[in-house]
Amino acid sequence: MPVTLCRKFYFNAAHRLNNDHWTAQKNHEVFGKCNNPNFHGHNYELIVKVTGEIDPETGYVMNMEDLKSIVGLLVTDRFDHKNLNLDVPEFSHLNPTAENIAVVIHRLLRPHILKDKKLQVVLYETERNFVEYND
Amino acid sequence: MPVTLCRKFYFNAAHRLNNDHWTAQKNHEVFGKCNNPNFHGHNYELIVKVTGEIDPETGYVMNMEDLKSIVGLLVTDRFDHKNLNLDVPEFSHLNPTAENIAVVIHRLLRPHILKDKKLQVVLYETERNFVEYND
Amino acid sequence: MPVTLCRKFYFNAAHRLNNDHWTAQKNHEVFGKCNNPNFHGHNYELIVKVTGEIDPETGYVMNMEDLKSIVGLLVTDRFDHKNLNLDVPEFSHLNPTAENIAVVIHRLLRPHILKDKKLQVVLYETERNFVEYND
Amino acid sequence: MPVTLCRKFYFNAAHRLNNDHWTAQKNHEVFGKCNNPNFHGHNYELIVKVTGEIDPETGYVMNMEDLKSIVGLLVTDRFDHKNLNLDVPEFSHLNPTAENIAVVIHRLLRPHILKDKKLQVVLYETERNFVEYND
Amino acid sequence: MPVTLCRKFYFNAAHRLNNDHWTAQKNHEVFGKCNNPNFHGHNYELIVKVTGEIDPETGYVMNMEDLKSIVGLLVTDRFDHKNLNLDVPEFSHLNPTAENIAVVIHRLLRPHILKDKKLQVVLYETERNFVEYND
Amino acid sequence: MPVTLCRKFYFNAAHRLNNDHWTAQKNHEVFGKCNNPNFHGHNYELIVKVTGEIDPETGYVMNMEDLKSIVGLLVTDRFDHKNLNLDVPEFSHLNPTAENIAVVIHRLLRPHILKDKKLQVVLYETERNFVEYND
Repeated sequence: MPVTLCRKFYFNAAHRLNNDHWTAQKNHEVFGKCNNPNFHGHNYELIVKVTGEIDPETGYVMNMEDLKSIVGLLVTDRFDHKNLNLDVPEFSHLNPTAENIAVVIHRLLRPHILKDKKLQVVLYETERNFVEYND
Repeated sequence: MPVTLCRKFYFNAAHRLNNDHWTAQKNHEVFGKCNNPNFHGHNYELIVKVTGEIDPETGYVMNMEDLKSIVGLLVTDRFDHKNLNLDVPEFSHLNPTAENIAVVIHRLLRPHILKDKKLQVVLYETERNFVEYND
Repeated sequence: MPVTLCRKFYFNAAHRLNNDHWTAQKNHEVFGKCNNPNFHGHNYELIVKVTGEIDPETGYVMNMEDLKSIVGLLVTDRFDHKNLNLDVPEFSHLNPTAENIAVVIHRLLRPHILKDKKLQVVLYETERNFVEYND
Repeated sequence: MPVTLCRKFYFNAAHRLNNDHWTAQKNHEVFGKCNNPNFHGHNYELIVKVTGEIDPETGYVMNMEDLKSIVGLLVTDRFDHKNLNLDVPEFSHLNPTAENIAVVIHRLLRPHILKDKKLQVVLYETERNFVEYND
Repeated sequence: MPVTLCRKFYFNAAHRLNNDHWTAQKNHEVFGKCNNPNFHGHNYELIVKVTGEIDPETGYVMNMEDLKSIVGLLVTDRFDHKNLNLDVPEFSHLNPTAENIAVVIHRLLRPHILKDKKLQVVLYETERNFVEYND
Repeated sequence: MPVTLCRKFYFNAAHRLNNDHWTAQKNHEVFGKCNNPNFHGHNYELIVKVTGEIDPETGYVMNMEDLKSIVGLLVTDRFDHKNLNLDVPEFSHLNPTAENIAVVIHRLLRPHILKDKKLQVVLYETERNFVEYND
């Protein structure tokens, strides 16, 4: 019977929402104050969930220290205290909405989680707004 | 790959639990202090989750402002600072348990969310008691 | 050196804000939706803080079980799942604003906390609205 | 349409992670500071979720008081303020990782929840580490 | 006996920490990743506390709607979804540390709170880092 | 005008409450389930508050990195994943109640915080039980 192991991470980043193919006016209409050209920012909370069988030797689905290393190296070290639009290449041509950030994080992590395990990403942009994405 | 967009809402309401077809004694036995005839109340927390494909133009599953308008108009404006039993017609003949409130909210919202999207409702009656309901 | 011992309690209650000496119109103007004649409600969170010297024999400022008994008997058993306006005599002629509820709770508890100890009450009406009151 | 009823419980317990068939050195390498021979501890948060149809007479999936009695008797009374390794027989030969604790709780509760209802257990070891397990 | 009325507000903003009179190297040494030239951001939580006597007619220390209007107009409308360094004139020559932001907010609000009332500002930059400032 | 800088820390530890000069029976009567001879445990949350003037060059009351180093070295590295009674010498003859733990932490930190600054310690044993201690 599979069990899901979950770990919460944090990163604080600036971003703005904008579609480069639209006029400034249309961007403002669609994205409102999230379109501010000087950026705004968030304390993002990221929950990574890995589902698999318990290893009978350790009692673990996965060693949490390994999960922390992978997410640290691939996500939080690269996103924390950064401007997502300017400093993170994945968003140089992709609008950093919560939806897109979650999908990007899932793609970054997926190759480093064993194939027989499921991977889910939950991303809180604020305490009230969040997204969920899984295989 | 579908992504789930989630938004938390709040409403503060009075209610009491009661089955009109039962005696006062049976209502008291089943519903305990929740049956208090003068009502009690809660700070309800409502999480509405909409699952669908990301629009490549906006990076959104759905514009959060649209979701806020729909939930505001149909749910929180009608439930907040109200007595669910006396002020909200949906509960004039339906016991306002957390379960029933969640189903009512889902029914109210469902016609206003695109058919190709899934809709889930999570309702916290207190920090410790909550219910989940989805298509 | 005094230490402050704190304990969080909960009660879920209905109330409405109203000044019996005012017209319905003035009450509506001042108290807005909190004036709803059919009541609304809240999950109140109450933090009781007692400040005093540590007893060297126990390492306690006060035995938490005693504090729980006192607050349970005098406050939460009497306020929980009640209508503050109709069921709690202290508010039969006193408007149950968060401020007044905090003062009432302090008055109820004060005689049962040793005189050489300070008593503070923090009352959350919602996560965003709260009041503090102390000797 | 099934609804899921959820209730949060708490227990505070000591534990250590150790595989009795391994050397002290290997245990230290795998479990790190969680292997401390003198134990450490956590404020565990347990969410029990029961999914089933709403009873039209009560508006309940299940009476919360019944759920509280079952979980109290079988889990929190037996785990709270205990040493999981030394005081709880289920872990005398089973490593009390969050994963194993969740599975044990599910096995303890399953026979006492009606067969036509699904049962899910969510166990928080800390605010940042948690596991999910369901039928 | 004075009572303290408290209200929590939110704003999401970008900022960077920098002293214009220092070299880039010194700024990097002192402010570390908070010195990122492309900015980062936070979900700031602001608690405004006003201490005064209860008005016996209303049961209020201050009408919360008035407090919400004042803080909205002077603080959150001007800070939310903004870049504190570039968009908020108060920080054009002042380093937007949590300490300085709290003092600026206190100065902005002080003239609009009655003189006989005390004013305290608590500002959370993250869940783990916060500052307190009062008269 | 002094500002207070606050930082939250965490440590997970086992402990038991016991007075070595009392009989087992008296210890059980006074400390109840907290007296379990096999220990239990908690996720302690520690808030350290330092009050002083803002340095006009940095905008800081104190560099948070320095505060993190001091608390890490003196408190969390020594208390986390430990048995307070057995592994931390300060409690070899001192009952590790929340009150005593807070005073011990204050004494450990005080010499490392500048004398012109005030120091306050808030220690959460659980979400509902906490203590405050200051100069």
